[in-house]
Amino acid sequence: LGRMLALAAAKLGLRCHIYCPDAESPAFEVAAAHTVAAYDDAEALDRFADAVDVVTYEFENVPGETAAILAAKSPVRPGANALAVSQDRLSEKTFIAGLGIEVAPFHAVDDGDDLARALDALGGSGVLKTRRFGYDGKGQVMIRSADEAGAALQPIGHQPAILEGFVTFEREVSVVIARSIDGAVEGFDPAANVHEHHILKWSRVPAGIAAETEAAAVDAARRIAAALDYAGVLSVEFFLVKEGGHERLIVNEIAPRVHNSGHWTESAATVSQFEQHIRAIAGWPLGRPLRHSDVEMENLIGDDVERWVEIIAEPGAHLHLYGKRQTRPGRKMGHVNRLKPRSDRG
Amino acid sequence: LGRMLALAAAKLGLRCHIYCPDAESPAFEVAAAHTVAAYDDAEALDRFADAVDVVTYEFENVPGETAAILAAKSPVRPGANALAVSQDRLSEKTFIAGLGIEVAPFHAVDDGDDLARALDALGGSGVLKTRRFGYDGKGQVMIRSADEAGAALQPIGHQPAILEGFVTFEREVSVVIARSIDGAVEGFDPAANVHEHHILKWSRVPAGIAAETEAAAVDAARRIAAALDYAGVLSVEFFLVKEGGHERLIVNEIAPRVHNSGHWTESAATVSQFEQHIRAIAGWPLGRPLRHSDVEMENLIGDDVERWVEIIAEPGAHLHLYGKRQTRPGRKMGHVNRLKPRSDRG
Repeated sequence: LGRMLALAAAKLGLRCHIYCPDAESPAFEVAAAHTVAAYDDAEALDRFADAVDVVTYEFENVPGETAAILAAKSPVRPGANALAVSQDRLSEKTFIAGLGIEVAPFHAVDDGDDLARALDALGGSGVLKTRRFGYDGKGQVMIRSADEAGAALQPIGHQPAILEGFVTFEREVSVVIARSIDGAVEGFDPAANVHEHHILKWSRVPAGIAAETEAAAVDAARRIAAALDYAGVLSVEFFLVKEGGHERLIVNEIAPRVHNSGHWTESAATVSQFEQHIRAIAGWPLGRPLRHSDVEMENLIGDDVERWVEIIAEPGAHLHLYGKRQTRPGRKMGHVNRLKPRSDRG
Repeated sequence: LGRMLALAAAKLGLRCHIYCPDAESPAFEVAAAHTVAAYDDAEALDRFADAVDVVTYEFENVPGETAAILAAKSPVRPGANALAVSQDRLSEKTFIAGLGIEVAPFHAVDDGDDLARALDALGGSGVLKTRRFGYDGKGQVMIRSADEAGAALQPIGHQPAILEGFVTFEREVSVVIARSIDGAVEGFDPAANVHEHHILKWSRVPAGIAAETEAAAVDAARRIAAALDYAGVLSVEFFLVKEGGHERLIVNEIAPRVHNSGHWTESAATVSQFEQHIRAIAGWPLGRPLRHSDVEMENLIGDDVERWVEIIAEPGAHLHLYGKRQTRPGRKMGHVNRLKPRSDRG
């Protein structure tokens, strides 16, 4: 994501400086400057903050202390608040529910007693998720019955967790919006997402949902962003529940950053999510993201990337490879956006 | 152009190494490696050629000797032949005319006597152009009558030149095509170009010409590329002449590279000219460039760039800034692509 943000910034004539603990970050190859240092290296953080005009991040697990050190010298956007809320599933869900936006029922679980009570409240089943550092299905255990409760805390290392009630959903939908520092908001069209092995595999736009549901998704994201006094791109994942023809959205999680389900915007919209994020954090006006084509994004995971030769020969296929040197199972190596003329226009 | 090629390569997961005599090249900021050295630094060229898999160039005035040194160690694409032909207006026009493709009438001019004879042959008027290193109207003198001939050689420094006959044209049109190393060709839709002060200002697609004329433009470019055994993107500029309802194309000049009049492809086609060039020189299959929108490209020249704040707020406008640190009159600082739904679809 950092690499794609740096590429978008370069197209706007901006210079990027990448800070990363990993000496092999693919973003270094497309940035004017880089620093390899740990997230707790206060001296390196100080020098970095002095060297730049504004700081942003590509993932939400940057430690709060790191953000605080940087924020003392340079604005950090979307901001410390967004980071704190989205790092912890408990605070995230509490915060969203507090806005009157529906989330799956949840209970804090710190130990076996908590878990027993939570299972009881949720009818004997649910998904146990660590509060912090979970992604792509990591840090999650499915509990189908009270019998499975005893063994559930061990695989997640007895970390602070939440138990979420199961949601029977029709499909998964996400929306990406951008909010400028003066509070203007532009939303992209929502995407319908399909996961394989807990990893996003397909995003399709249009999402095949009602126009009012699309508007409700953007509106929920807008309210979340406003409550966080947010500047930048915000992504919200929903479960779409259908009850007798009526569609309802339940927030699954938010990400205070560009999102894999928004990669389609690079090929099928007049402004990409990456450019919108750069505009927003730079204090520029947002673009009006018009979608000129229907689009299907496929993630190339692990060996999928070996199909690149066929993909690149497909008419209407936009291949994007991330320049990672090693292919590993489950690793996101690239994506492809397949365009079709808009189905709602002649 | 080097910067835009590097950005396109990065999206395909490739690493770029930029060789440039100028220590301030904007391409350095988006490339994995760079070398600052002169075009005649044989040692630096050797090291560079050893470090890369394939070499390309962003402009046609790279010295032939430089290309030869590089080609001894690494393939140079589009190739030495394309470079030699396009560096010299006399060889370029002789070559194209030799393929049976129409060019403006021309005569070699090395001195005053040549010029007198050439003017005589062309009816007393024409444009005197240096054979080498001309661009954006530099190295050109208009001669409207034989009286002006005496003073004409001085402003071009008495360099070897050609005198071209005036062509009364309806509009200027250009086409960008790509040819792969195995000879496959894909053409982009031709653009109609408007120059101001000899610098490209606007490119519009569709170009507003007959479908047969569009096909003829691509075909001429295809024949030129085939004759040069070309790999990469080739650009051909034409004068469009109208005689009683019939449209005829006359080649003005060719460029063995991506072209300013193809910048629209970045926003309005499923594959950009930059990506096509990278695919072609890397030996990859070409993309099929479907155009999803109508588009108008505006070059931001000199102070034009100060309008970026308004431009960036326009719906459907794609702003691209080049990251140049100094604005100078006549300097290309960026461009904007303005998209509209295709006029030929619903």
